[in-house]
Amino acid sequence: MRILILGGDGFCGWPTALHLADLGHDVVIVDNLSRRAIEHELEAYSLTPIVPLGTRLRVWRELGGRAIGSERVDVAREYERLLELIVGERPDAIVHFAEQRAAPYSMKSSRHKRYTVDNNLNATHNVLAAIVESGLDVHLAHLGTMGVYGYGTAGMRIPEGYLPVEVTTEDGTRVRQEILYPANPGSIYHMTKTQDQLFFAYYAKNDGLRITDLHQGIVWGTNTPQTLRDERLINRFDYDGDYGTVLNRFLMQAAVGYPLTVHGTGGQTRAFIHIRDTVRCVQLALENPPERGERVRILNQMTETHRVRDLAQLVAGSTGAHVEFVPNPRNEAAENDLHVVNDLFLDMGLRPTTLSEGLLCEVTDVARRYAHRADLTKIPCTSTWTRRQAPGVPPEAAPQELTPT
Amino acid sequence: MRILILGGDGFCGWPTALHLADLGHDVVIVDNLSRRAIEHELEAYSLTPIVPLGTRLRVWRELGGRAIGSERVDVAREYERLLELIVGERPDAIVHFAEQRAAPYSMKSSRHKRYTVDNNLNATHNVLAAIVESGLDVHLAHLGTMGVYGYGTAGMRIPEGYLPVEVTTEDGTRVRQEILYPANPGSIYHMTKTQDQLFFAYYAKNDGLRITDLHQGIVWGTNTPQTLRDERLINRFDYDGDYGTVLNRFLMQAAVGYPLTVHGTGGQTRAFIHIRDTVRCVQLALENPPERGERVRILNQMTETHRVRDLAQLVAGSTGAHVEFVPNPRNEAAENDLHVVNDLFLDMGLRPTTLSEGLLCEVTDVARRYAHRADLTKIPCTSTWTRRQAPGVPPEAAPQELTPT
Repeated sequence: MRILILGGDGFCGWPTALHLADLGHDVVIVDNLSRRAIEHELEAYSLTPIVPLGTRLRVWRELGGRAIGSERVDVAREYERLLELIVGERPDAIVHFAEQRAAPYSMKSSRHKRYTVDNNLNATHNVLAAIVESGLDVHLAHLGTMGVYGYGTAGMRIPEGYLPVEVTTEDGTRVRQEILYPANPGSIYHMTKTQDQLFFAYYAKNDGLRITDLHQGIVWGTNTPQTLRDERLINRFDYDGDYGTVLNRFLMQAAVGYPLTVHGTGGQTRAFIHIRDTVRCVQLALENPPERGERVRILNQMTETHRVRDLAQLVAGSTGAHVEFVPNPRNEAAENDLHVVNDLFLDMGLRPTTLSEGLLCEVTDVARRYAHRADLTKIPCTSTWTRRQAPGVPPEAAPQELTPT
Repeated sequence: MRILILGGDGFCGWPTALHLADLGHDVVIVDNLSRRAIEHELEAYSLTPIVPLGTRLRVWRELGGRAIGSERVDVAREYERLLELIVGERPDAIVHFAEQRAAPYSMKSSRHKRYTVDNNLNATHNVLAAIVESGLDVHLAHLGTMGVYGYGTAGMRIPEGYLPVEVTTEDGTRVRQEILYPANPGSIYHMTKTQDQLFFAYYAKNDGLRITDLHQGIVWGTNTPQTLRDERLINRFDYDGDYGTVLNRFLMQAAVGYPLTVHGTGGQTRAFIHIRDTVRCVQLALENPPERGERVRILNQMTETHRVRDLAQLVAGSTGAHVEFVPNPRNEAAENDLHVVNDLFLDMGLRPTTLSEGLLCEVTDVARRYAHRADLTKIPCTSTWTRRQAPGVPPEAAPQELTPT
């Protein structure tokens, strides 16, 4: 397959590009290097050393990897260049990771909210408009998030995107319908992903585009077999309060002797996936595209769920680290359950990589090896979700979850 | 009340500004005059002569009207100016009409799609982010559209924004929930309005903003008592294939001796409202704001429904015009029913202005008076909804409506 990977220099994009190239596909990375620019803005860098993209690609080639192309394009701003690239490359598939992906970053200030909205929505829409204008039949696979579902699910298992409901008509007849799962985003970042879903539904319906939306859980782990081949191919490891994701953050905190900071009661249940499964899932999604005229295919890209404080205790137990409860910056319910269906990937042949001592140790080892690069002042999350969280102001009412009325 | 009217120079914004000023409110119009720029782009002008905004405001004042302020701001691009204006004016309410509002225009080309998405989504988000950043408790009233509901409603009456559904949990329990009515937009323009709904839901939930979303039907009529006071206060009358709305277009076609062009079978049922009721509804919405912490208040701003071919026959019967059926440029079901609840406005005291011979004649009179300004070559709709509508290409499958599964 010929595959464009938008955002192919990022945390999920880079190992995906290597994995797909390793399978023999022709891969072109399309990226504006915005993640590297944000590192400078925040003065918070990947714990692992990330060499320039050109070096990454040269090393990969020197080690015998299949050549990967690279184009510097701002997908949200440079529509004409994106269109030329699609028309010139005639890809079979486009993988779209080109969005600002951190919820806390999206909540830092009005400017960060507006950047996330402007960048993410224009990026997604530009890709869709360009595929239509190209006249080509390109399968689009987009990285979404489990967060579009929200976390108040009234004891239901979260289905793969579509929810069967019953409505009662005027004359009392009960009608069963399948609807897009009602959106309940918890941050500006998550909100843009729920708005992306409406782009996809529209373009699938109106233009017959073939689209897969991957609702991914929280990614943990760092390396895949490909990124391990050379230190210069290593993947990002973010531990800062904006981009660090919860399990990796705990493992890094344990490695450097910092308390494991749990937000609120730690009663939040979240879905997780190892980075090795992320790249496998994208592969499976590309090998199983929807038919033309089919509705958007939505896959829950996660393998297990855990309560945050259980993870903290697990890491504390195996490393001797101390758990510290800090105020939750997010405007969310303190405790929630989460049950998720992921049958579609299991049916396609995914064998889940679940939490194991070995893989946890691998992350701690990476964190320990690069501990000298850590800036511990970057660990706390400084974003606040609402203005009412300023000192002396009463807390927000509980968010309106999709709970029984 | 102090009221900012974003898009106050447009077809709905202008008569709303005059109506609210006439009631004694302090009104400031905020507009980038984009509608006037698009007139030049399309070389399709309002049938009625529209004088410069400065002249409109001066004439209004000279006739004894309460002074209306005016600020030239691009709401989607000039966030800092918008924020300064809100902080400086400290409005009680903001009425948000500042979006590209024509479905056919939004479908003309990739550029028009992208302009509509970029302008509408950034405009709405900038207003919300600015209200939060200002720290003020401003009620936002937004002009949405009935089109967010789609037109496949399985025999249900369309409720005011929220749909009661039943879902079945894991253990077989039936749970009743109220959800945002599932979106089913018919054009890029309509899609942006469904995405606006997600902005509103998020900001109401996370920041406690007070928001009213007015889901308006197709507006007909031209003048309100205020715009009739002087020819230089007259409202727009659009008859071109992009901005002309169906009933006004028929009445104008009858006035100039052009056939009434019905798209497809004319079996589409649509919701309608007279411009005099539009301005009254905005007034009622501002006088009845939601409480802080309340979910987004959604009101169906329409007074009656009609099938398009019935309207054509009504106009043909009273004017002797000839009805002509032309291919439908839209990708939609040929025939649909539509039943809509509008109880909230009726409860607030709206007395609907419904279709009557007299009001129809008033529109035809306006059209006849300015018939010499008409450019009949601008009447046909030249936008096509999908690339498959090019000649010789098989038609698209029927759109996936929210019909029973």
